[in-house]
Amino acid sequence: MKIALVGGTGKEGHGMALRWLRAGHEVMIGSRDAARASAKADELRGLVGPDKKVLGGDNASAVAQAEVVVLSVPYNAHTATVQGLKAELAGRIIIDITVPLQPPAVRRVHLPPGQAAALETQTILGDTAKVVAALHHVSSAHLGSDHEIECDVLACSDDEAALETALGLIRDLGMRAFHAGPLANAVALESLTPVLLHITKHYKGSGVGIRLTGV
Amino acid sequence: MKIALVGGTGKEGHGMALRWLRAGHEVMIGSRDAARASAKADELRGLVGPDKKVLGGDNASAVAQAEVVVLSVPYNAHTATVQGLKAELAGRIIIDITVPLQPPAVRRVHLPPGQAAALETQTILGDTAKVVAALHHVSSAHLGSDHEIECDVLACSDDEAALETALGLIRDLGMRAFHAGPLANAVALESLTPVLLHITKHYKGSGVGIRLTGV
Repeated sequence: MKIALVGGTGKEGHGMALRWLRAGHEVMIGSRDAARASAKADELRGLVGPDKKVLGGDNASAVAQAEVVVLSVPYNAHTATVQGLKAELAGRIIIDITVPLQPPAVRRVHLPPGQAAALETQTILGDTAKVVAALHHVSSAHLGSDHEIECDVLACSDDEAALETALGLIRDLGMRAFHAGPLANAVALESLTPVLLHITKHYKGSGVGIRLTGV
Repeated sequence: MKIALVGGTGKEGHGMALRWLRAGHEVMIGSRDAARASAKADELRGLVGPDKKVLGGDNASAVAQAEVVVLSVPYNAHTATVQGLKAELAGRIIIDITVPLQPPAVRRVHLPPGQAAALETQTILGDTAKVVAALHHVSSAHLGSDHEIECDVLACSDDEAALETALGLIRDLGMRAFHAGPLANAVALESLTPVLLHITKHYKGSGVGIRLTGV
C-alpha cells in the first residue's frame, strides 16, 4: 500500500518506514520541512536499497499520494496538523499514533480536552473520517531495530474496514495486532503509554511493552 | 495481615479471599447484608480449613477490624459505599479495584465524573487517605481457580508505603505486581478493563489479561 507518514522524520517514523519498506509497501515521508523529509527518504533508501519506493516532501503532498496516513506528531502539534491537512485527509485511512503526553510529566496520565487525541482527530475531521488509534505502546527503539518486537498492538476505530486495513499493516511491522473496539477506547490505549514510561523508568526496563494473555 | 473485603460476597472477593487465606492472611468478608457475609465466610472456611481465620459481617464492622481494605463493589454502588464508610476507612490502606463500567456497554471506555473511581475515592476521603488502585485486569474466574494466573497487576497510588504494602499482598495472590506511578494513572488502569472485555469477546478468549515485556 501507499503509506504517508506525517511527521515522519522522527524516530517512530524511521522505524515504521524501514519495516514497511522491507514488507514491500511504498512510503511517503512527510514533514513541515520538505527538505528534511527528502533527506530522511534518501537515508531510508540507503538502508533498504534502491528498489524500494520511498519519497519525501511536505506533509500535504505526502498525504495526497497515500491511501493510508499515519499521524506521528507530538501532541502539542496534533490539533494544528490535523486542521491544516483536513482537505487532504478526507477519504483516507488515518492511523493516529499520538499520545497526549504533557512534558515534563510524561509518566503521569494527562487526558486532553477531547479525552483522547484520536477522538479529537475524529471531531476535527467529522463523523465520516476513517480514524484508527493504534501503536501507542511500541518504543521507537524497538521499531527502529531489526529484532523481533515483544509488544502487542491494540487498535480501535469506529470504521471496521479501516481498522482491518490498519491491523494488516501493523502485522506487516512484525507485531501481533488486536481489534480493541470502538474509537472511544482510544482513551485507554493512549493513557497506558505514560504508565509504561513510568514502569520503564521505575524498574530500569527497556521500552516496556505489553503482551495479551488468554487470547 | 488483616484484610477486609468490602463487597466481598462477589466473585472477585471469593477468589481473593481464598488466595489470601491460603497465604496466611486473615480475611473479613464485608457486605451490606451481614448474614450473606457470614455465609460466605463459612463457605470459605469449608474450602481452606478450620485453622484459617475468616469472618463475615456488615461492611463497617469488617473494615473496623482490618489494616487493609479492598473495595470490591459495582461502580454504581461505589460513591455511596465510600461515603458511608468514610469514618471507618480513615487511616487504613484502601485497595480500590473498582472499574467504572457503564452497563450494558461494558466493552466501551466510559470515564466517570472524577476520571477514575479511585480518584473519586481519594476525593471523598481527602488527601491523607491511603488509596491504591489495582487489580482491574484479572478475571474473577482466574482468581477463583487454583491455577497460576497469567496476568500482571499494575498498581498506583500517591502513598508510597501503602503502594508497597499493596504490591506485597498482590504478589501473595500469586501474580507479578508492578508500581505503576501516581494515583492519576488509575485512569489508564481502570479504562483498560473494557478494552480487555472487548478483546475477550471479539476473539472468544478466556479472561484476557496482560503481561509486561521489557521489564
